[in-house]
Amino acid sequence: MALPPNFDRNCSTLIADYPQILMAHGGGGRLMHELLEKMILPAFGNSMLYARHDGALLDFGEEASGRRTRLAFTTDSYVVSPLFFPGGDLGALAVYGTVNDLAMCGARPLYLSVGFIIEEGLLMETLGRVIRSMQVAAGRANVQIITGDTKVVDKGKGDGLFINTAGIGAVASEQAIAPASLETGDVILLNGDVGRHGMAIMAAREGLAFENVIESDCDCVADLVLALLAAGVRVHCLRDLTRGGLATALNEIAETARLAMALVESAIPIREDVRGACEILGFDPLYVACEGRFVAFVPPQDAERALAIMRSHPLGAMACDVGRVTGPSSHGLVTLKTQIGGYRIVDMLSGEQLPRIC
Amino acid sequence: MALPPNFDRNCSTLIADYPQILMAHGGGGRLMHELLEKMILPAFGNSMLYARHDGALLDFGEEASGRRTRLAFTTDSYVVSPLFFPGGDLGALAVYGTVNDLAMCGARPLYLSVGFIIEEGLLMETLGRVIRSMQVAAGRANVQIITGDTKVVDKGKGDGLFINTAGIGAVASEQAIAPASLETGDVILLNGDVGRHGMAIMAAREGLAFENVIESDCDCVADLVLALLAAGVRVHCLRDLTRGGLATALNEIAETARLAMALVESAIPIREDVRGACEILGFDPLYVACEGRFVAFVPPQDAERALAIMRSHPLGAMACDVGRVTGPSSHGLVTLKTQIGGYRIVDMLSGEQLPRIC
Repeated sequence: MALPPNFDRNCSTLIADYPQILMAHGGGGRLMHELLEKMILPAFGNSMLYARHDGALLDFGEEASGRRTRLAFTTDSYVVSPLFFPGGDLGALAVYGTVNDLAMCGARPLYLSVGFIIEEGLLMETLGRVIRSMQVAAGRANVQIITGDTKVVDKGKGDGLFINTAGIGAVASEQAIAPASLETGDVILLNGDVGRHGMAIMAAREGLAFENVIESDCDCVADLVLALLAAGVRVHCLRDLTRGGLATALNEIAETARLAMALVESAIPIREDVRGACEILGFDPLYVACEGRFVAFVPPQDAERALAIMRSHPLGAMACDVGRVTGPSSHGLVTLKTQIGGYRIVDMLSGEQLPRIC
Repeated sequence: MALPPNFDRNCSTLIADYPQILMAHGGGGRLMHELLEKMILPAFGNSMLYARHDGALLDFGEEASGRRTRLAFTTDSYVVSPLFFPGGDLGALAVYGTVNDLAMCGARPLYLSVGFIIEEGLLMETLGRVIRSMQVAAGRANVQIITGDTKVVDKGKGDGLFINTAGIGAVASEQAIAPASLETGDVILLNGDVGRHGMAIMAAREGLAFENVIESDCDCVADLVLALLAAGVRVHCLRDLTRGGLATALNEIAETARLAMALVESAIPIREDVRGACEILGFDPLYVACEGRFVAFVPPQDAERALAIMRSHPLGAMACDVGRVTGPSSHGLVTLKTQIGGYRIVDMLSGEQLPRIC
């Protein structure tokens, strides 16, 4: 793919603005997008990267029979701190995160690779617990871990354990599930309450004790997505809500699709304990990470049926209609109708709300 | 795949022997194999992992036409220190290392994913240099980087930059290229001199100045391997020589295949400057990492032709016949006929010769 005409090969403006990497460059917000736009995408630039989806689609389409093998391919590294938290751990996250990204491409997750980067001195028992958790998660998600790598770095040059997983899935639908498929009028469906993963991590990290322990929503949503596709629901786009939460996911899609979106605050489920924890800690729950939540964009005619399918699945019991795609917008404006009837802009984060959340 | 009958689910013997992770658990030698055997393989155990190859083979074989889509899938994390060294850098290594692993599966490398784990405070200019190096390497290796992820960890919790790549390639041959295909009498071919990568890193790390700068052999060997396969050479097994060098690669294959191998020391090319550096530093060049070297096991009838093909390629100009597969051996004994006519056992390393070499 051709580079943008004004591409700055030496990234001198980026380097002038940010001579050093900041935590926010990995936070999913504005700075990370700038790093992608100005350095990473131009270097590796190809149509698949520029599609800005959760994974790449591969078409091995030379079969004489006309049947094609369509695969999705995705990767994520997981650097969450602490390694164990209520409702999950690094190992479960490393499986479900990548499996969910495959599902967001409309693919049935099949195979994972795993790369361990271990800090010297990690307790062997800790590694064993994480690996057993990956084993359980892979079983639940029905994927096989088929290739891997183990590296050890010197004490003080890592942080216990980082895991990378890459995944391959079989695309389960002929639909083009991507921001480019969005249409004005599309209904935005959300499969459950938001903000639990981020608040679970935050509480574990800071040793905060709320009245109830907030558990991460960390789980595999592939089955639920595949049920929608199998039922023939027209799904224009899917996106899981990880770093940066609901607000960031919608901003990314709106910006890529150049469409505006309008959300209804009262329709977005947030548990009372999560809302309370966010208030105490000064977080906006719309920006807090989830690990078992996604949005589906469907045409209005299919919305009721899609909701019914989602609600019949344990991970979609609280599924709801949270807004609409409203029309063209050069910068992808996302607005929110607040509880008290006003409107506010839901922008992309400039900095970072919560580092090392996944 | 069933677990071994004596599998210790809680890895208690491993934990008793090694309560903490040591650098050697990532060094490619005996301790890493023990970690794999006792903890990782039993947890994720499936036939593909147990095949102990550089990657996994996937068969999307349901095509009505009878033609199958056969893919190879592999991953490696790269944690080399320092990031830049004579002849290469982390970025080139992260591309060529994974591309070479695909080639070792007899596959034409097609696509890579990339996961960056960046330490807060890394110079943006340094990241840019590594990324440009990946861009050049991907171009030379004719692969596309199509999906990726960026994480940032706190200052002091990483070491500048770690990169994971996973790769997908199209299997280019119907041959079963794997340790299990080895046969007594197979000739062991090596595509060039050994030990340069390790000594280049060592010199860069310690600030040693030898008479000549030793440059890493870091390069993409896929073309050379594909040329062998395209010519119809019967290739029983391939393995690139990374962590642990020639000795470790041969020990791994011999152990998996339960066959003995005999090497001829005088046939193994080692540059004088590399040999000298190894002597000064107390390294055995047979255990020093390479990043553009591989062994090919071919039946004796095909050996001459294979050598000729290898020698006609720039990365095989110094290709040579270094030994034979000699017969059954329950532990996979590898022996070396020394320069002075004696014999010695070439064992797997117990500890680690050189940490963070790739």
